[in-house]
Amino acid sequence: MAPAETFQESSSFLSDAQALIPKLVYTDEEPLETVSFEPDDTVFLRHRRVAQDPMSVHEETWYSTGADFIVDFEGHRTGYLSFDLDAQGINVDSPARLRLTFGEVPADVVEEFYPSKSWISTSWFPYEVISVDELPQKVQIKRRHAFRYVRFQVLEISPKFKVRFHNIKSHAVTSATNHVKPVDLDGFEVIDQVGLRTLRDCMQTVYEDGPRRDRRLWLGDLRLQALVNYVTFQNNDLVKRCLYLFAGLQVDGKIMACLYERPRPATSGDYIVDYELLFVVTLLEYVQATQDTATGLRLFPICRQILTRTLHDHIRDGLFTPQPEVWYFIDWQEQLDRQASIQGVFIFALKAAQQLGKLINVNVDYSKEIQELTQGAMSFFDTDKGVFVCNGQVSWASQAWMGMAQILPAEKHVQAILSAIEDPNAIKANTPYSYHYVLEALHRNDAKQQCLALAKTYFGGMVDRGADTFWEAYSENDSLFSPYHDVHNNSFCHAWSCTVSWFLRV
Amino acid sequence: MAPAETFQESSSFLSDAQALIPKLVYTDEEPLETVSFEPDDTVFLRHRRVAQDPMSVHEETWYSTGADFIVDFEGHRTGYLSFDLDAQGINVDSPARLRLTFGEVPADVVEEFYPSKSWISTSWFPYEVISVDELPQKVQIKRRHAFRYVRFQVLEISPKFKVRFHNIKSHAVTSATNHVKPVDLDGFEVIDQVGLRTLRDCMQTVYEDGPRRDRRLWLGDLRLQALVNYVTFQNNDLVKRCLYLFAGLQVDGKIMACLYERPRPATSGDYIVDYELLFVVTLLEYVQATQDTATGLRLFPICRQILTRTLHDHIRDGLFTPQPEVWYFIDWQEQLDRQASIQGVFIFALKAAQQLGKLINVNVDYSKEIQELTQGAMSFFDTDKGVFVCNGQVSWASQAWMGMAQILPAEKHVQAILSAIEDPNAIKANTPYSYHYVLEALHRNDAKQQCLALAKTYFGGMVDRGADTFWEAYSENDSLFSPYHDVHNNSFCHAWSCTVSWFLRV
Repeated sequence: MAPAETFQESSSFLSDAQALIPKLVYTDEEPLETVSFEPDDTVFLRHRRVAQDPMSVHEETWYSTGADFIVDFEGHRTGYLSFDLDAQGINVDSPARLRLTFGEVPADVVEEFYPSKSWISTSWFPYEVISVDELPQKVQIKRRHAFRYVRFQVLEISPKFKVRFHNIKSHAVTSATNHVKPVDLDGFEVIDQVGLRTLRDCMQTVYEDGPRRDRRLWLGDLRLQALVNYVTFQNNDLVKRCLYLFAGLQVDGKIMACLYERPRPATSGDYIVDYELLFVVTLLEYVQATQDTATGLRLFPICRQILTRTLHDHIRDGLFTPQPEVWYFIDWQEQLDRQASIQGVFIFALKAAQQLGKLINVNVDYSKEIQELTQGAMSFFDTDKGVFVCNGQVSWASQAWMGMAQILPAEKHVQAILSAIEDPNAIKANTPYSYHYVLEALHRNDAKQQCLALAKTYFGGMVDRGADTFWEAYSENDSLFSPYHDVHNNSFCHAWSCTVSWFLRV
Repeated sequence: MAPAETFQESSSFLSDAQALIPKLVYTDEEPLETVSFEPDDTVFLRHRRVAQDPMSVHEETWYSTGADFIVDFEGHRTGYLSFDLDAQGINVDSPARLRLTFGEVPADVVEEFYPSKSWISTSWFPYEVISVDELPQKVQIKRRHAFRYVRFQVLEISPKFKVRFHNIKSHAVTSATNHVKPVDLDGFEVIDQVGLRTLRDCMQTVYEDGPRRDRRLWLGDLRLQALVNYVTFQNNDLVKRCLYLFAGLQVDGKIMACLYERPRPATSGDYIVDYELLFVVTLLEYVQATQDTATGLRLFPICRQILTRTLHDHIRDGLFTPQPEVWYFIDWQEQLDRQASIQGVFIFALKAAQQLGKLINVNVDYSKEIQELTQGAMSFFDTDKGVFVCNGQVSWASQAWMGMAQILPAEKHVQAILSAIEDPNAIKANTPYSYHYVLEALHRNDAKQQCLALAKTYFGGMVDRGADTFWEAYSENDSLFSPYHDVHNNSFCHAWSCTVSWFLRV
C-alpha cells in the first residue's frame, strides 16, 4: 500500500490528466481507386501495383460470394471505415458475411497472415469478419484501424442476390489540429510530410506509439513525439496530459514504461530504466517549450525520486551495473551490450535535472553524481580508436548515448559516431528509435549537416521504399525484418520514427 | 404501375401494420453449466453429453489462446448474448479475438460448418468472430441468435495475459407475453411445452418462420402460428399486423409468399399459389377468433381478387392445371405430385371465403366454383382403394388436402389418410408443415383420437430425439436430412412445427 498522501497526489495527477483529454478532429475521405498488386521481388515492399480502376467503375459493380477487391485511400490515416452495403437480386435472403482487411502497406492486404511466427499476439492482425443481417444497410466499423488500403472480401452471401459497396469512407481521427508550415529545404519536402503524417496519426488522446498495434503511451516514444510536437502541431497540453498520466500511475514509486488509456488509465507490467530516466528529460523539455514552470515544480519531486532510486539501484562506483530481471531497452537488438548506453542515459538525465532545477528555481545539485558517472563513462572510451568500446563491442548506440551525455568535446563525439558508422563490425542501430539518438547526438554536438545528411539517407530511404508514414522497424535490405519475427505484426506508422521533422526545424 | 387508389390503400395497410408493432419483452438468463460432447452414432443428434461443470467452476477459470468451452442455457431461446470479458496477466497487451458459435442443437457447436453443400447461403451459419480491443470489457453481441448452447473459443490473445468470462447472459426476446395454461393431457405435457416454446421463440415483431434463419414472415407459417396463438398467447394484434403487412405489400395485385420487416417492410421475390390461397383462410380464422369484422371487411376484397385471379390462371374445366414457372409448395418433397393437393387447397380456400362472407355480411357466392372443383377433385378418388391417386401417385399430402377440402363424408377422408399412411409406397410428409395438414385433416374429419395418437408419435418422437423446440425438418431415421443439403442450415425452432399445442386445445 502506498501512503495516503502519495495516493492522494497520484489521484490528483490522474484527474488533472483526464481534464486534458483533447478533442479529436475527424476528417472524412473517400478512396481514390481500386488497386491490384502482384508479388515482385524487385520492389522493397514485395508487391507491385499492377492495375487500378477509378471508384466510379467499382461503384457500378455488383459482387457475389468470393468477390475480392482493394481500395486505396492514397495516404495513411488512423480512423474508422464506413460504407453503404447495397443489395439487389430476386431475393435478398441472407446476411452478408464480409472480411475487411486494413493495410498500412500492400503486404497487409495481399499476403496471408497465418500461420505466423509472431511472438506478440496475432490478435493484432488488422482484419474483421462481420455479418450484416439486413440489407441494404450502412455499415460502420466500430474498431479503429490504421490504413491506407482496405481489402473487401465477400465471404458468403446468398446466390440470389449481389452486393454493391457505395460511399466507402474513412473517418480519420487525430488530436493534431494545427496547420504546420512545410519545411523549405531542398530534397526534404516529402520526407517532412511523411514525418508529420506519422506524428499526426499517432496523436490521439495520448501520444500513441503506433495506431496499428499497441496504441499505448510509451515514455521513450513520448519524448520524441513531444519534441516534434513543439515545433509542429504544438498541442502542448497533450504532452502535459501524458506527463500527468505517468505521474498518476506510478507503481511502487516508479514511473512505468507505458500506459493504457482504456478501459481506464492503467500501467502495463513494463518498466524500463532508460525510459524512466527520460521522464526527467521530457519534463525539462516541456517546461522549456511552454514556460509552464508550475508543472515543472509539481513534477520535479518525481524526477528527484527517480534519480535517487535508480542511482542507488544501478550505479556502483560510478559505473552502471546491470541488474537481473530488469529491462534496459536502448534498441530492439539482441547482440547489443547496453552498459555504455545506459551510462550515457544516466548522465543525460542528471544534466537535464540540473538544468530543470535552475529553470524552476529549485535548489538541486547533481554535479557530484555527474562527475562520478562521467569518470565512469570515460572508462569506456578508447582514446586510440576514438570510440566508446563496451566490453569489447563497438556500437552505434554507445556512441550515440555518450554523445547525448556530452562528456567529451563535441567534435570527439561526432568523430566517435561517424567512426562507428563506418566500422562494418559495429552493432548498428536496428530501429528508428535508436537511429534517432545517433542523429540527435550528432545534432547536439554541432554536426547538423552530418545529421541531416544521414537523416536524408535513412528516412529518405524509407520514403523511396514506399513509406507513407515512417515505420517502426526498418532494415534497408530486408523488408521482412521484424522485432516480432513476423513483419505482419510490425507497425508502419510509428511515433518514434517521426523525428526527422524535428531535425528539419531546429 | 399500380393505379393511384391501389397505392394509397397499400400504403394505408402498411401504416396500419406498422402501428401494430408489438413491444418485445426481454428475459435475462444465465447458463446453467458448461458441457462437453462426444460423437455418438447411437444418439439421434449424433453427439452425447459426456461431462458438465457448474458455472462456478468455469467462472474461476482463466483461459489462453486455444481455449474452447460450451455453455448450456438448458432451453432454446431467441435473443442476444452478453458477457464480461475479464483479463489478467503481467500485461494485457493485445485485443482478444474470439469466436462465438450459437447452437440450437449440439452439432451446431461441435461439428465443422465448412465445407458445406448447402444451396442456401452459408452466411446463415450461426457464428461470430469478434475482436475486443480494450480489456476488461462488457461484450454485447448485437446480432440476434437462436440458441441453447454457446461455444466460446479464444482464437488469439497475447501470451502475457489470460481471460475469464463472467456474467454470461442471454437476453431472450419475444412478443409472446401471456401466461399459457399448460395442457393436462397424459403424456403430452412435455410435447406441449416444446410446442409453446417453439411459437414463443418465433413470435417477434412478426410471426417469423424461424429465428435462426430466414426470420421472415411466411404466409403458410403465419396461418399455423395464428391458430396456435388464438388458443395460447393470444397476441391477436400480431396476426392483424401480419395480415396488413401482406395486404400492404402486394406485387401486381398478388399477395406474396413472404415478407421482410427490415431494413423496411418489403416482399421477397417469392410467390406461392397455395400460400396465397391460405390468406383467405387466415383472414377467416382471424375474424372467427377475434370478432374483428372491420378487418374482415377491409381485407375481404383482396380475398375475392385472389380467388378470381387464381381460379382464372390455374383452373381448367374444374381441374387445377399447373402453370410453368410457378411455385406450388405443399411440402419440401421433390417426388411429390402436387396436383391433387393444390386442388384441395383451392376448395378449402373457396369454402373459407364463403364462410367469411357470411360472417361479415358480404354477399358472395362461390358455390358454383366449389361444386366444379369438387367434381374435379373426385376424379382423383379411387373408389376401390379409397384413396386419392394423383397421376398414379398416392401421397399423404393428397389425402390431407382433400381432407381439408372435405369433399367426402368425414370417415372416408379419415380412411384415405390412414390408408396412405399404411401404404409403404405412398409419398410421405417430409416436413412438419405437411405433417400438420395430415393431422388437421384427421381432426377436421372428427378423427381427433387418431390425430392425437399420430401427433404424439411424431412430435413426441422429436422430443425423444432431443428437441427443445420443434424442428423445421424431421426424418425419424435420418438426423442429417435437410431440404438444403446441409443440416447445419436447418432451423431447429420452426414455426410451422408448433401446431401440436393447437391440437391439444381444440
